[in-house]
Amino acid sequence: MAREGRKGGRRGVASRKGGAIDQLPWSQSRLAFPSFEFVSEEQLQKIHDTSIRVLSEAGIRVMSPRAADLFAAAGAIVDRDTMTIRIDESIVNKALETVPSEFSMVARNPQKQISMGGTAINFGLVAGPPNTHDCINGRRAGNHRDYCNFIRLAHHFNAVNIIGNQVVAPMELPSNTRHLDTYLANLTLSDLTFHCTAIGRGRAMDGINMMAISRGIPVAQMAETPGVLTVISVNSPRLLDDAMTDGLIAMAEHSQPVSITPFTLMGAMTPVSLPAAMAQQNAEALFGVVLTQLVNPGTPVLYGAFTSNVDLRSGAPAFGTPENTKANIIAGQLARRYGVPYRTSNANASNCVDLQAAYETMMSTWGATLGGANLIYHAAGWLEGGLTASYEKFILDVEIIQNIKEFLKPIDFSEDELGLDAIKAVPTGGHFFGESHTMERYETAFYRPLLSDWTNYENWQAAGAKDALTRATALWQQALEEYQQPELDPAIAEELEAYVAHRREEIGSNEP
Amino acid sequence: MAREGRKGGRRGVASRKGGAIDQLPWSQSRLAFPSFEFVSEEQLQKIHDTSIRVLSEAGIRVMSPRAADLFAAAGAIVDRDTMTIRIDESIVNKALETVPSEFSMVARNPQKQISMGGTAINFGLVAGPPNTHDCINGRRAGNHRDYCNFIRLAHHFNAVNIIGNQVVAPMELPSNTRHLDTYLANLTLSDLTFHCTAIGRGRAMDGINMMAISRGIPVAQMAETPGVLTVISVNSPRLLDDAMTDGLIAMAEHSQPVSITPFTLMGAMTPVSLPAAMAQQNAEALFGVVLTQLVNPGTPVLYGAFTSNVDLRSGAPAFGTPENTKANIIAGQLARRYGVPYRTSNANASNCVDLQAAYETMMSTWGATLGGANLIYHAAGWLEGGLTASYEKFILDVEIIQNIKEFLKPIDFSEDELGLDAIKAVPTGGHFFGESHTMERYETAFYRPLLSDWTNYENWQAAGAKDALTRATALWQQALEEYQQPELDPAIAEELEAYVAHRREEIGSNEP
Repeated sequence: MAREGRKGGRRGVASRKGGAIDQLPWSQSRLAFPSFEFVSEEQLQKIHDTSIRVLSEAGIRVMSPRAADLFAAAGAIVDRDTMTIRIDESIVNKALETVPSEFSMVARNPQKQISMGGTAINFGLVAGPPNTHDCINGRRAGNHRDYCNFIRLAHHFNAVNIIGNQVVAPMELPSNTRHLDTYLANLTLSDLTFHCTAIGRGRAMDGINMMAISRGIPVAQMAETPGVLTVISVNSPRLLDDAMTDGLIAMAEHSQPVSITPFTLMGAMTPVSLPAAMAQQNAEALFGVVLTQLVNPGTPVLYGAFTSNVDLRSGAPAFGTPENTKANIIAGQLARRYGVPYRTSNANASNCVDLQAAYETMMSTWGATLGGANLIYHAAGWLEGGLTASYEKFILDVEIIQNIKEFLKPIDFSEDELGLDAIKAVPTGGHFFGESHTMERYETAFYRPLLSDWTNYENWQAAGAKDALTRATALWQQALEEYQQPELDPAIAEELEAYVAHRREEIGSNEP
Repeated sequence: MAREGRKGGRRGVASRKGGAIDQLPWSQSRLAFPSFEFVSEEQLQKIHDTSIRVLSEAGIRVMSPRAADLFAAAGAIVDRDTMTIRIDESIVNKALETVPSEFSMVARNPQKQISMGGTAINFGLVAGPPNTHDCINGRRAGNHRDYCNFIRLAHHFNAVNIIGNQVVAPMELPSNTRHLDTYLANLTLSDLTFHCTAIGRGRAMDGINMMAISRGIPVAQMAETPGVLTVISVNSPRLLDDAMTDGLIAMAEHSQPVSITPFTLMGAMTPVSLPAAMAQQNAEALFGVVLTQLVNPGTPVLYGAFTSNVDLRSGAPAFGTPENTKANIIAGQLARRYGVPYRTSNANASNCVDLQAAYETMMSTWGATLGGANLIYHAAGWLEGGLTASYEKFILDVEIIQNIKEFLKPIDFSEDELGLDAIKAVPTGGHFFGESHTMERYETAFYRPLLSDWTNYENWQAAGAKDALTRATALWQQALEEYQQPELDPAIAEELEAYVAHRREEIGSNEP
């Protein structure tokens, strides 16, 4: 399990001399406060009871004979005509017995091991946008060059703990082997764990195999400390497709973690009322959790949540809404109830990096944090409801993540920090600037921001009156300049290249 | 006590037809969740114990013989040479016995009565900036015209519950009678309660007298339901000046609420460590609370908090920092411990309405909300560390306040809302758009934002690609056009004018 504290990171003290970007060191953030009990135990029970009735009375449709067999063997009622599977509470409870409440993940840098579960909190790079944007070059289709740049940024900033699935899709590369290019970039340009796509068994296995190669271990050993994670999206309402199910099975067989994430926009994929949306999400998530344990008891699994709402005037998806914030917190209460690590997201619906992007992201992030999310996916770079990965939004999000990480830092209540003598030493109406108690803590007392500018108006004007968006543009450029590729054993690099070449040929034009 | 629900407000349904601005109705928001216990009972006790030692060993300096007499009579140790007053825990405890745990305030509109204390949460207009800014006319010195515009905006938007002290200073008016002009604007352009300045007895009495006139009641009756509030700032560390003390005494004599607010920037006015800052703030706040009860037991009083930090590289004040967020929550825990209503602030240090302004405001606001603040002062319009009242920031803040109010709205967990039948009615992979459960809740299911734009990228582009700042400029202009001055009995208006004329003459050039 990762320890609290500094490790594997860099603190660019040079930036105070005008050098490298100043940032927080790498650390495993943990919630230092008790769980936030937003809704009552009784209300949680109502959600739970409703979701069990959804599972036992309506069921979930799963387009996979293998999954149907596993559920049938576990005592589920399987309708082979419609492939609808109904399960009762005892099947859920039995599966929950074998779910690990906390597990670790690591890529090739043991100092960047992360913990999923318990009080741990991790932040992931945005995943999936078809487009990318920065304020210099504008909006464009996803491509391999931008893909690599985002991996460099994720590696450079300690705020990012894990790489999501395809931060931007490299649209110019063949779609059936694109995953190999992105895995290779993840493993050579960074030393972080990542999300490998599980649309079908092949893509999942490539992720598992390549991570094992990069760590210089046999695939079997990946079960001890997983290195890749996948997200299985439920096609809400109540549908799990065959490719997703195959991917889930492949990951579970190799004990690699799976996040079961119903995509539940209230008003579209669920009823408009929040309790109903939570009940449906809960049913779908629990169903996927059960499947992982039927495949391989003990498989690490996350309770995934992505409940937000649509704009009922236009049908457009909305994120970072008050409803989304509540859902993020309640889902955390449910996941804790079941002892399952919890994944949610940080999202917003703005079309540019503006005030809306900032406040919606904050609503989302506070909900996720108060929900005790072990993984906040899409935490850095998400824009346009997920259709664009933005460079400036990435910098904004790193600042927001750092603020949250500092907020989570435990407070020292020792006598020295309570500072009675320090208070008494300064006369009434005086100041504490030169005091020894102050000077001794000068360097580390407060969070030093990445993006915020605290100079006064006159100095800010004199320095060009740059707003935070303008400063963000400068920061991602500087970070790409400062970026240093992590060293990789040439033999391992060669083995990775060979794997990709072999698989590229094998897949050819045969696989979808 | 104000009831939950719609009253006195307007919901501009017309805006969906392109008419009036759509906003939330007037309501008394209340926390619907249990208190957030961020630090432990033991840690709170350490803060309390340290603050009691500050009060009994170091004491507070008060530049007022009247206050010294009151403390001496209560058993305090008073050093008449230095005017330093030391009190022990028993004096604090005795005073806390008479502090009301909740009280109401109202101006001339009984439908806009607000509650301070318990679970109530209220949002105040920014107070005190010498400058104002909007994106059309730029930055300029505070003046009466802009003052009146901000009062109109505060009246127009239901998000604002109370007017702060001088949203912008009308710099062109004589400083010794300026308060009369601002009180008159508050009472004629809005029907909200307000903060009357308590720098000296005269300004406090003018506020009390004018509010009584506007309500058509004798001053003595103002004790039943107060109509004005003041903030007594402690000149931290440990100094209460004579003008502030005189103002406090005048307000307490008339049972009008006082917020005792130490201005405690860590590193400048307190030690840099958060526990020490909280202990000092607690000592100073409790001292002021005690004084109100010595003047007049039962005086409504708020525990005020304004603990943030300075940038230790430049000495510049910083707001909306992680440290400020923590302080906002812990202060709420302390206030609840003492059973004293709690006031804190929403502040940021940005020089323009940009990403920084938005995320710092969100950090501040979440801290205040999780702290259970009964009054979030400076909640709308604060910019530049408090040196500028901004029109666009006001609109941004109204959106943020509305998001928080919606977040606080209790969730209905009835069978209908749990929606089992609604979930079962839609086939797997289907959608809920046309379902009766959806249609019945169509209008009110989700928060409808003021500033957010949820259209897709193409439509947003086609509509001019306006970012949120540009939209905010349009919104404050529209609001000023839509604003309707609340009706006032002409006899009362005349009496107010006469009072102001009389006092203007009386003050002349005699008072400072």
